[in-house]
Amino acid sequence: MNPPMNRQWILSSRPTGMVGPEHFTLQHTKFPVPGKGEMLLRTRLLSLDPANRAWMAPNPTYKAPVQPGDVMHGFALGEVVQSNVPGFEPGDLVDGMLGWQDYAVLKARDATKRETRYRPEWLMGVLGVTGLTAYYGLLEIGKPKAGETVLVSAAAGAVGSIVGQIAKIMGCHVVGTAGGPEKCAWLTQELGFDAAIDYKAGGVRKALKEVCPHGIDIYFDNTGGEVLQAALFMMNDKGRIVCCGNLSQYNAEKPEPGPMGIPGLMVVKRLRMEGFIVMDYFATRAQAEATLAEWLAAGRLKAAEDIVDGLERAPLSLAQMFQGRNRGKLLVRVS
Amino acid sequence: MNPPMNRQWILSSRPTGMVGPEHFTLQHTKFPVPGKGEMLLRTRLLSLDPANRAWMAPNPTYKAPVQPGDVMHGFALGEVVQSNVPGFEPGDLVDGMLGWQDYAVLKARDATKRETRYRPEWLMGVLGVTGLTAYYGLLEIGKPKAGETVLVSAAAGAVGSIVGQIAKIMGCHVVGTAGGPEKCAWLTQELGFDAAIDYKAGGVRKALKEVCPHGIDIYFDNTGGEVLQAALFMMNDKGRIVCCGNLSQYNAEKPEPGPMGIPGLMVVKRLRMEGFIVMDYFATRAQAEATLAEWLAAGRLKAAEDIVDGLERAPLSLAQMFQGRNRGKLLVRVS
Repeated sequence: MNPPMNRQWILSSRPTGMVGPEHFTLQHTKFPVPGKGEMLLRTRLLSLDPANRAWMAPNPTYKAPVQPGDVMHGFALGEVVQSNVPGFEPGDLVDGMLGWQDYAVLKARDATKRETRYRPEWLMGVLGVTGLTAYYGLLEIGKPKAGETVLVSAAAGAVGSIVGQIAKIMGCHVVGTAGGPEKCAWLTQELGFDAAIDYKAGGVRKALKEVCPHGIDIYFDNTGGEVLQAALFMMNDKGRIVCCGNLSQYNAEKPEPGPMGIPGLMVVKRLRMEGFIVMDYFATRAQAEATLAEWLAAGRLKAAEDIVDGLERAPLSLAQMFQGRNRGKLLVRVS
Repeated sequence: MNPPMNRQWILSSRPTGMVGPEHFTLQHTKFPVPGKGEMLLRTRLLSLDPANRAWMAPNPTYKAPVQPGDVMHGFALGEVVQSNVPGFEPGDLVDGMLGWQDYAVLKARDATKRETRYRPEWLMGVLGVTGLTAYYGLLEIGKPKAGETVLVSAAAGAVGSIVGQIAKIMGCHVVGTAGGPEKCAWLTQELGFDAAIDYKAGGVRKALKEVCPHGIDIYFDNTGGEVLQAALFMMNDKGRIVCCGNLSQYNAEKPEPGPMGIPGLMVVKRLRMEGFIVMDYFATRAQAEATLAEWLAAGRLKAAEDIVDGLERAPLSLAQMFQGRNRGKLLVRVS
């Protein structure tokens, strides 16, 4: 059943602007063999995330950068094929940084065992890092109260689509920004957003004024850039800006200046702006997953997935994500 | 004992750039008479603060702007001369927005009675809004832990000089920025700062690297601008930026772009940036004042005051504050 070789996508050169397939090379290497305390995993679902682009830059983020010549880093769901670790058996599902390859060897401390009673796609999306990012970012950093106005950017994306739905569950007035009228219609008609703004149509600031008549209490920022700038001027006193991502900047060739009004508006409006990494909250991960699963079961939360078949399509799919092609969680089905 | 007339500084025109005496006119008006539920106050000490400049701009801050033709707004210590309010007697000291004038009439709800056992200058400085701003901003927003590195800008100013000293009491490594070698020497030799950087000498970023070998955990920002930009790059993971003021911008003719790295660094470093208004914490004001008074009595905290004599000098003194003339709390002794 084992293939003779392992396919791996290598970062062949660092992108300076938009990432594309030209920055990757497919390599066939020897099949990896797990050592003591390690396990061999077959990649099932590979997660493509905006953060992947940040890992390709030369500067460290919350993890070390990918070096040219390395297998591209990637978070994935894997199935245990062979285990030298007590408690991990063939057939178990784990997640971790398997990378862009068919097979990976991981130590136990780098792998998290996942429940097999849920759809594997959910484990990588709404019940995985994506869903938890939305959950903790909104609830722990944003601290929404019923009746407040919540704005979320990249609202049709993996995290944004869940943030908006949780904010609705919390009783908030929810507005999302997305690229194009189809995504906007999907947000309001399928996911229950109160309003959606097509940022590609221009006039974000004016549109925001119309759909946020009471200002903005929480801005869940996945993009930075124009939406952050417009939101800052609309924030209410004691508003919270959840810094989750900087999608508008990941492919920028040089850093842009920050938004006007910082720090001035932070002072006069008593704003809080806060970044976070979901892993900091993993102590309560099981409870959060259970809550999300309940909402899914009750039909209060919809999981949106965009699944691409075949490891060979990972580089192009990543580039397309930055062109705004996907809706919901983008996954590559590897096996 | 009452003078026949009341001197008042009127905002005659809004400054668009640097504020100066040319924006004010001295007016002599009829002596004010307190009505029912009001009291007549004689201004003793007028507080000059960077925020005064922000109040002169056409946009509201945390309070309505001063309109041309209005008596210039100003926080001050006043002595009750005549009272139609039970509980307030002639000779009592109160603080409130008396404005730039010899006499003011205030309602009881707009005045706070102060203790007479402390020096009046302390009531307007280290035991007043200034000291409480330093205290709550550092302790409640910054949440310092012993051993952490705290940077404060405008460290020789009214708030900054207290922030740095409280941070030392908390066991932190404390660095301040100030304009000129004399102020810097004063910070390290008189106030116990571990290091001071003369931002006028250039090379703030390089100097910061030298004196903050373990990065920055808390940046208490009174200035925005260059120091905020340099600090952002030096912040440690989970660092806190206390947004207290924006001194570098109050006299700017047009808004500058914000610092580079926002929101990107907020995400990867998990930073928190938060503005506040000291009044939000006034429920525990008495305890905070008592703590500050204890530190003063024990010689652990030094009150620095820069006192100018005569209401007639208020406009020039405000302008000079923005030129960096004062050290510590700038007060005008009116009577």
